[in-house]
Amino acid sequence: MQIVIIGSGNVAYHLAKAFTQNSIPLAQVFGRNVDDLNKISQEFHVPFSTDILENADLYIICVNDGSVEDVSRLITKKDCLVAHTSGSLPKEILSGKYRKSSLYPLQTFSKSKELDYSKIPFFIETENKEDKNLLFKLASQISENVIESSHEKRKYIHLTAVFACNFVNHLFSRAKEISDGQEIPFNYFLPLIDETVKKIHEIEPRSAQTGPAVRNDIKVLQLHEQLLTDESLEIYKTMNHSIKKMYEL
Amino acid sequence: MQIVIIGSGNVAYHLAKAFTQNSIPLAQVFGRNVDDLNKISQEFHVPFSTDILENADLYIICVNDGSVEDVSRLITKKDCLVAHTSGSLPKEILSGKYRKSSLYPLQTFSKSKELDYSKIPFFIETENKEDKNLLFKLASQISENVIESSHEKRKYIHLTAVFACNFVNHLFSRAKEISDGQEIPFNYFLPLIDETVKKIHEIEPRSAQTGPAVRNDIKVLQLHEQLLTDESLEIYKTMNHSIKKMYEL
Repeated sequence: MQIVIIGSGNVAYHLAKAFTQNSIPLAQVFGRNVDDLNKISQEFHVPFSTDILENADLYIICVNDGSVEDVSRLITKKDCLVAHTSGSLPKEILSGKYRKSSLYPLQTFSKSKELDYSKIPFFIETENKEDKNLLFKLASQISENVIESSHEKRKYIHLTAVFACNFVNHLFSRAKEISDGQEIPFNYFLPLIDETVKKIHEIEPRSAQTGPAVRNDIKVLQLHEQLLTDESLEIYKTMNHSIKKMYEL
Repeated sequence: MQIVIIGSGNVAYHLAKAFTQNSIPLAQVFGRNVDDLNKISQEFHVPFSTDILENADLYIICVNDGSVEDVSRLITKKDCLVAHTSGSLPKEILSGKYRKSSLYPLQTFSKSKELDYSKIPFFIETENKEDKNLLFKLASQISENVIESSHEKRKYIHLTAVFACNFVNHLFSRAKEISDGQEIPFNYFLPLIDETVKKIHEIEPRSAQTGPAVRNDIKVLQLHEQLLTDESLEIYKTMNHSIKKMYEL
């Protein structure tokens, strides 16, 4: 099977790596950014192009949601399967006469970070059973965790991930901003952060909640508000309000 | 040295465990809640009382911030050291003629969760060098990471911890609420959550940010807002606004 990856960002980079690491050859990586394409090409020994799209059986589109539709028009072939990797878009956004599908890897991808692809859940959606089997077989060569999912469910999976990953990371950024401001080394907080996550492998997050908000410790809450300004203060108020609502304080 | 722990909550439980595990005997655990005291007493073979405070060289107060001052008045002895374990209170909140100090363990404590105490940073503040040495020596028997810290710094350490732990856990709770609502197993998200945290051991959280907000993906942001209500919607808007401000989008 001839496979082409379209795109050269974080998802394209890691999918190219995951495929080639698992001895699944790629016919091409196609995109606009020559530097990024070159990096993928060199690292994983995959041909790249910025103008002539290789003939393939499967095209995997790894570009920003806003560009998926436009990029999908570049594929003029009919007898092929096209998958996008978006958590939010329906497979019908793909614009062409080919068979349409979605292959959504649930992970946070940064180029400079090594990943264990075998643990990444892949959510797939296709038009027919043959394509489902094809994507299932392919993704199963990378990951132990391949799951069929409707677009409706996938939207909520992505939304959950935004809370559990993107927003969590932003809290780390704001936390570090606070500690940096007082010249407190951020690595003091790593055991606490590790434990916060270890806990929810064993306990429901709802039961694991600690801190001044869930204790309704008004004095500490007031003190903290005095120490904060701008966005961090807004986050503080919003999170405390939400904690109070959840625990009916 | 005779050591008494006052309190029977999560911090008292884990300090009693950490001390006894490291062969540091406790003279007593003192408090109001007989069931909780009994549990600590039975598990770690420490005498307990609800009315007669044992004579000791060091009293460690592990109660809610709002009760520290009142509880500290129960100690009428003068020739002793008293430490509270609050992240926010000054040592001067302790009301008595004894020597005052703070011993702040930076960790999230839930009774049902096993902990590796050796990695927990302990922040200490005392009135004099002898007491500093005493607390340093004591805490070093439990942890590899004992650090002197002023009240001013400690307040910010606690505040940073609220963002990096308490708020992060609440995001997990809200995330789980979203996935539960669609009957999506929350364990799908554990590899993503683990990776989110692993990343910041290697990369600055600011550089590790991914997701629709930092890509300024307006369509996805609008879609997500339509899927959310109430507190989760408020969190979504506040976090996205803060991400946009941080990255000047």
